[in-house]
Amino acid sequence: MLTLNTDKFQDRHIGPSNDEIKQMLEFVGVSSLEELIGQTVPSDIYIKNDLNLKDPMTEHQFLQHMETIGFKNEVCKSFIGQGYYNTITPAVIRRNILENPGWYTQYTPYQAEISQGRLEALLNFQTMVSDLTGMPIANSSLLDEGTAAAEAMLMFYNHKNRRSVVANKIMVSSKCFPQTIDVVKGKAKPLGIDVIVSNDGSEIDDSYFAILLQYPDVEGEISSYGPIIQTAKSLGISVIMAADLLSLCLLKSPAELGADCAVGNTQRFGVPMGFGGPHAAYFSTTEEFKRLIPGRIIGVSKDAHGKKALRMALQTREQHIRREKATSNICTAQALLAIMAGMYAVYHGAGGLKSIAESIYSKASILKHNLNKVGSDPVNSNYFDTLTYELKEDDIPAVRSMAEGSKLNFRYNENHVSISVDQTTAVEDLEKIIKIFARFQGVDLVKFEMNGYSIPDELKRESEYLTHPVFNTHHSETELMRYIKELENKDLSLTKSMIPLGSCTMKLNAAAELEPISWSEFANIHPFAPESQFAGYQEMILDLEKDLAAITGFDACSLQPNSGAQGEYSGLITIREYQESIGEGHRNVILIPSSAHGTNPASAVIAGCKVVVVQCDKYGNISMEHLSEQVGKHKDSLCALMITYPSTHGVFEHHIMEVCKLIHDNGGQVYMDGANMNAQVGITNPSIIGADVCHLNLHKTFGIPHGGGGPGVGPICVAEHLTPFLPSTTYGDSTRTNRFPVSSAPYGSASVLIVSYGYIKMLGAEGMKKCTQVAILNANYIKSRLEDHYDILYVGKENSRVAHELILDMRPFKHKLSIDVDDIAKRLMDYGFHAPTISWPVPGTMMIEPTESEDKAQIDRFCDAMIEIRKEIEEIEKGEFPADSNVLKNAPHTLEVMINEQWDYPYSTKKALIPLAWVSQNKFWPSVSRVDNSYGDRNLVCTCPPIETYMEPVAETEN
Amino acid sequence: MLTLNTDKFQDRHIGPSNDEIKQMLEFVGVSSLEELIGQTVPSDIYIKNDLNLKDPMTEHQFLQHMETIGFKNEVCKSFIGQGYYNTITPAVIRRNILENPGWYTQYTPYQAEISQGRLEALLNFQTMVSDLTGMPIANSSLLDEGTAAAEAMLMFYNHKNRRSVVANKIMVSSKCFPQTIDVVKGKAKPLGIDVIVSNDGSEIDDSYFAILLQYPDVEGEISSYGPIIQTAKSLGISVIMAADLLSLCLLKSPAELGADCAVGNTQRFGVPMGFGGPHAAYFSTTEEFKRLIPGRIIGVSKDAHGKKALRMALQTREQHIRREKATSNICTAQALLAIMAGMYAVYHGAGGLKSIAESIYSKASILKHNLNKVGSDPVNSNYFDTLTYELKEDDIPAVRSMAEGSKLNFRYNENHVSISVDQTTAVEDLEKIIKIFARFQGVDLVKFEMNGYSIPDELKRESEYLTHPVFNTHHSETELMRYIKELENKDLSLTKSMIPLGSCTMKLNAAAELEPISWSEFANIHPFAPESQFAGYQEMILDLEKDLAAITGFDACSLQPNSGAQGEYSGLITIREYQESIGEGHRNVILIPSSAHGTNPASAVIAGCKVVVVQCDKYGNISMEHLSEQVGKHKDSLCALMITYPSTHGVFEHHIMEVCKLIHDNGGQVYMDGANMNAQVGITNPSIIGADVCHLNLHKTFGIPHGGGGPGVGPICVAEHLTPFLPSTTYGDSTRTNRFPVSSAPYGSASVLIVSYGYIKMLGAEGMKKCTQVAILNANYIKSRLEDHYDILYVGKENSRVAHELILDMRPFKHKLSIDVDDIAKRLMDYGFHAPTISWPVPGTMMIEPTESEDKAQIDRFCDAMIEIRKEIEEIEKGEFPADSNVLKNAPHTLEVMINEQWDYPYSTKKALIPLAWVSQNKFWPSVSRVDNSYGDRNLVCTCPPIETYMEPVAETEN
Repeated sequence: MLTLNTDKFQDRHIGPSNDEIKQMLEFVGVSSLEELIGQTVPSDIYIKNDLNLKDPMTEHQFLQHMETIGFKNEVCKSFIGQGYYNTITPAVIRRNILENPGWYTQYTPYQAEISQGRLEALLNFQTMVSDLTGMPIANSSLLDEGTAAAEAMLMFYNHKNRRSVVANKIMVSSKCFPQTIDVVKGKAKPLGIDVIVSNDGSEIDDSYFAILLQYPDVEGEISSYGPIIQTAKSLGISVIMAADLLSLCLLKSPAELGADCAVGNTQRFGVPMGFGGPHAAYFSTTEEFKRLIPGRIIGVSKDAHGKKALRMALQTREQHIRREKATSNICTAQALLAIMAGMYAVYHGAGGLKSIAESIYSKASILKHNLNKVGSDPVNSNYFDTLTYELKEDDIPAVRSMAEGSKLNFRYNENHVSISVDQTTAVEDLEKIIKIFARFQGVDLVKFEMNGYSIPDELKRESEYLTHPVFNTHHSETELMRYIKELENKDLSLTKSMIPLGSCTMKLNAAAELEPISWSEFANIHPFAPESQFAGYQEMILDLEKDLAAITGFDACSLQPNSGAQGEYSGLITIREYQESIGEGHRNVILIPSSAHGTNPASAVIAGCKVVVVQCDKYGNISMEHLSEQVGKHKDSLCALMITYPSTHGVFEHHIMEVCKLIHDNGGQVYMDGANMNAQVGITNPSIIGADVCHLNLHKTFGIPHGGGGPGVGPICVAEHLTPFLPSTTYGDSTRTNRFPVSSAPYGSASVLIVSYGYIKMLGAEGMKKCTQVAILNANYIKSRLEDHYDILYVGKENSRVAHELILDMRPFKHKLSIDVDDIAKRLMDYGFHAPTISWPVPGTMMIEPTESEDKAQIDRFCDAMIEIRKEIEEIEKGEFPADSNVLKNAPHTLEVMINEQWDYPYSTKKALIPLAWVSQNKFWPSVSRVDNSYGDRNLVCTCPPIETYMEPVAETEN
Repeated sequence: MLTLNTDKFQDRHIGPSNDEIKQMLEFVGVSSLEELIGQTVPSDIYIKNDLNLKDPMTEHQFLQHMETIGFKNEVCKSFIGQGYYNTITPAVIRRNILENPGWYTQYTPYQAEISQGRLEALLNFQTMVSDLTGMPIANSSLLDEGTAAAEAMLMFYNHKNRRSVVANKIMVSSKCFPQTIDVVKGKAKPLGIDVIVSNDGSEIDDSYFAILLQYPDVEGEISSYGPIIQTAKSLGISVIMAADLLSLCLLKSPAELGADCAVGNTQRFGVPMGFGGPHAAYFSTTEEFKRLIPGRIIGVSKDAHGKKALRMALQTREQHIRREKATSNICTAQALLAIMAGMYAVYHGAGGLKSIAESIYSKASILKHNLNKVGSDPVNSNYFDTLTYELKEDDIPAVRSMAEGSKLNFRYNENHVSISVDQTTAVEDLEKIIKIFARFQGVDLVKFEMNGYSIPDELKRESEYLTHPVFNTHHSETELMRYIKELENKDLSLTKSMIPLGSCTMKLNAAAELEPISWSEFANIHPFAPESQFAGYQEMILDLEKDLAAITGFDACSLQPNSGAQGEYSGLITIREYQESIGEGHRNVILIPSSAHGTNPASAVIAGCKVVVVQCDKYGNISMEHLSEQVGKHKDSLCALMITYPSTHGVFEHHIMEVCKLIHDNGGQVYMDGANMNAQVGITNPSIIGADVCHLNLHKTFGIPHGGGGPGVGPICVAEHLTPFLPSTTYGDSTRTNRFPVSSAPYGSASVLIVSYGYIKMLGAEGMKKCTQVAILNANYIKSRLEDHYDILYVGKENSRVAHELILDMRPFKHKLSIDVDDIAKRLMDYGFHAPTISWPVPGTMMIEPTESEDKAQIDRFCDAMIEIRKEIEEIEKGEFPADSNVLKNAPHTLEVMINEQWDYPYSTKKALIPLAWVSQNKFWPSVSRVDNSYGDRNLVCTCPPIETYMEPVAETEN
């Protein structure tokens, strides 16, 4: 017999072997995967045919295919600027962070005790942002510069208009980046904020709540904005400054100029352009707004033994956002990219960054000097990296054609050409540019001179930055490599054990899917490069859109939203635009089940809607009664129902089609939250179920790594009638109206789309369907193993099956024994496991999602640990250990506690540290004891603390 | 001022910052690096000018440059075979092993307790080899197939002729790979072994000691070699079989056919061709020869608490090779590549490997079937992957030109064309090949058919392989990734802390130097590809040869030797060939100082020479008196002096030029061992000192990572008169005579040459000189910090300076307190450090080499640990702790011992585990207690033991 294809990717991606699948099926009491699915998923929503996708590629074929795709992109030298620059990623950072699963497979650091590594890396990022902008408070990144500016707008809008709307105008400088202006306008519209684009801001008065300035501006000009800031201050108007972080090494900081908030992109700190993303945007502000800042903040606190410990600060604001009162739906950050950018600062230090900035300034100076000699002078008088030249509009095509002939991309805007130099610009590049101008001006090429200018004193930075030891220690490659590895090893990632987070789908992020991201053909494309230069990207993106549409059963897809919450928001906006187009623009009530993700109501609010909550019944299903009642009540203003399927309770609701029909019958649209798409792919789809739009989390279902809290990608797929209202892309499909974009870059986080593209191409229809089946099998296997030990909260009405995740009810232990679900979560760390999702969607419970990538042996170890913990609870119940000092209450147990303290716990170190024999094989050590969250929130510190504070217990002082 | 270049690589490579250098200079009592060098290096050997090298590139420039170089290589589909095949490296292995410093920066696993990860990976490799070849004993890799075959020849030659020479002929099948035949001939010549290349072996009689057969042979034919093996057996002649390991998944094993030894390449187990290397060759044999097997063997033993533990078996044979009686100079293995190949088997398992082999066989079958239909039939009747077709010799160029036009490389040999298919061959490739043959035969292309044949029963394998659980567990990517990470984390690599191994120069292996190795343009070039396809490689290699010649002050360089010992051997052979050419071929006495590396005498013996040892004086310098005496005595037969400089005692001997003159005056040549070249580069060189030839360890001085025990590269540089006698390369410089090669591939381990090339290009003359200066500073700083606590064994006569390494004398503790130098080495593990070199070159001492890459903070921590250990010794001296149970004797302390045993040591766990505060920050846990070496050597087990044995203490049984 002829055997040719030997290596199916699905056999690598799916954890259990076929033998294990058989054993597990037997254990749960069915004879086949099909039988299990039959018991789990309502038969009326099955898709009729297999997904219409191409045959799966092997890993080798995929990588060869990506080479072919890559060749279709043309890597030119881009001097386009506008927020995106060539940058040098230090190889030690690329290899040990970007290409290291120890970093990219980590989850958001909710479990602080096993996340101190990335928490420290993110604190470095915040410190860098805080130092350079001069603002005391910085968050741990936002999605991109445009959304960061929009978030600043929302923050000041809500602050100013707390009680009632007193000022609804924002002035946006016309010299801001165009994509920023568009994103701000898009976010402003549904909330009724008036965006006034202005040249000089002379019109501002007390109807304004904020102004947004670009520094340096889009033409490269640098101004201290003295008069306008003064006016704003005097009128109580907040000042937002979108600033180039690298330029701040040489220029006065936004804080020194009087800004209340600084935002921007940190891409040029060693993160490749990647055709637009992902990169980490930054956001910093003054003390006054520290509790209003959107996104995640890493803060300093202490652990149970008084040791300094980091954790995400002010977390209560996040998953628990106060639904109807939400002021932001920001959830995902760009953790991995923020970590890279922060590490770039750690590696270069203040001196290194300053010399990079100086070299860029020098190159711009040389360019200016020599262009002057061939007869061209820029329109901007001051500059950091960008020079803008005025030409006759008719001349632009000639210059452009000469430049592109030399493989140089400039920025063209009506009768202006802008050139932004960067870290990678070589003297030869400058010579080429000057030759083009000389040729164009018809003058002889004068001798190239290495002369320059200097920044005027009034703009020159005098203040210090990056003085903390962390920025002054790891400057050799050896030491940076060790620092990166030391931090990596403090954190529990997928390289260590399963991360069974319900609703987060922590599956394999295959190396083959990720490899092409580092290739120059994908990494070094500017998001605003000429269309001819990204044919490869375009081919991949169109194909991915098509496949995602096929998977959801829909008509079209937009890949622009770069997080799940952005997807939700975009989906709602698409619905609202559609309704407006048919004269139903007044519809603004969104029905949301009580079990929904917290971002659902937040997104609805940001989309300018009112949220009405629908109750669930005791099975976790939407109460049809309450739903009908609410639909009846809000019939005339019903915009949409937002629903997650299978529900966040982990159940395939059987009346789902009935629910959708009810909404449609009453003029509403159905928005499906795709968080649980991993239980649908290849078996059912949102279209069959009756939804009109669905967002997908490519970082959950489709293999993009979580990166310790981002990047995320949240595309939306829509039915035909919504297609014209998708968020616009600058290029491509002309059937779409030109809507406001939801991201700064045309295709959002384009470079990580490669991962999902690879996922789909290598698994194919058959593989993805099997993934869904095995994900459901794995969850039901855990249920079968644990149901004698724990209460399973919700199961299907008929066969007691769960979907791809299940909820354990820990509330009984709380009532009887004061054992909190948190105690169980922390105790799991002693066994080497990351806790499942805690207290969501139901407080006091634990939601477990094993995904298809975990094999039986790993799941068995996890179940063994859970069962052993149940025994430990029983021991407390029996009085064998006191309720206030036992292995759960004192968990996690650290090396330092074992060594330094007198061991006066009523149990042995062995019981504490190696509760089951296999734990010692590969013991993972939490680096701090239980972290005190409330202490940290009371004493918010979000930059690197002085090094000495790591040495001694923390004194409790309120600030 | 204009700043353009901002990022010097030397600032990343060199550990101490300029500030730290100042502090350290002050501490050692000099005012500048120049002053320190003045006190250390004799002024008469300074080089006059700076090295004549190009200006250093930045990392970014280097990577761009390598892209340009890469474009000059043309990646065609190679069907050349001959021991090298396209293969698919699983991305999970590439990313997590090949591209992961946690694996490639490891040292050879001499310190078993902190090397259990790679020891296990290498044991997997041995088990794979043993299973597939059917031989019970396998080593953990050799350099390449040719040298492995030569080593087998040496083993059987020495075995047969133990007392006196009774048989000196070896029959080598003419169907062996040509490069294997050449390497074997080369190794045979100096020892007087007669190599008879034979078609059928009909001539063998009792003057033969061995036969060497290829399986499948170079034309692809498979034979069971029944008659000749029977004849050999009856005559007591040993049978060596060079076998393709992958083919053995389908074919009867060498053991089943009656071979005594199997050798071959494991490259096609997922290791890229890399233009010839590095790859891991394998060597397996029967029980009878288990104590004669060359190279390193990983064996199973137990630790101090009876737990199963791995370590290198029979180590006494290695550095302590009995000098004059050496039978092999093999030292370096190809650990990193063996680990990759072993992991490939772990990932695929028996089933996966078998299906890869079957797919290859199927593709060959399809090719045969369809070529038959266009009128071509192969000359070989049986086959695995290779088909050979006879053509008229005149027709070859036409076929070749058609094939190369389609970017296909075949193997051409006189009037034969051979085509080897492999794992990557696609059906489209087969179609192309068939089209070429059809076109050539002038026939119409018949419809391509997917028909095949099957392997005849008498050759078909029936026996099982890879049945151990390790080959049947890690088949999903998630599980393999975790297994790789688990093993990585058991081992102390440079990612964790310094590895201050004297004579091993464990410096930074920069990521930028290593990145291009993975690029297709370097990874996928066949070593015997047409010259037009490797212009990039050639440019780089010629440039590197030139630079290395400049650095050593010599005339020419050969990059062929792929280990230091190979370099030594090649250097001696070059000298001997030169002497032969001037009628001095009788010269065969090699003088070697007693302080020399153990490989020196071994290499001399293998080169057919006699070793005479020269004594050292009490300063560690060569005794001039004894040298003169020996020179006088052996004047007429004096071949060469082998000398290391600075000496292995870590001292720049001041009379070095006098020594060289004495040798030259007496007709000898001076061979310099370049092990300590890191103390010379840019300051002095072997040519000035008076040597004629010098080998370099690119894996020490020039940045190639140690990879846990290989790859190594040991080029030799020679003075003008020796240039014509360098080992030949198949291509290139026509001024060289066509000598026998010392490696299978023309340029040895070509792909890792990129690392050294990058090292030199990025550091430049100035950077490399500073490296040398700082390496010497670091050693002298350690000396200054430790000299009040330990005796420094050898220092320079005049200023008491050491070179780049220093020796601490631990013998006093042995005499007084029974504390062995090993106890100190093992105790260092508890502090998180790898021990320095132990008991070499002087028993009972410790040799420390910090290299230039370690910064002051790291060195200070190491010194703190050493000083604390000295205090611990003092406590024992004072009787505070008993001599037989103290922190040194019981070191290293493991987690399991702490947890499982009753802690009845007379000191606290804190003292044992966290002896200094900073240890807890980043505690490294040895995974086993002190390993019992002699137990393992008495009970040699070198394949994976049954899984249960890991659970229980080991029973002591002799075997």
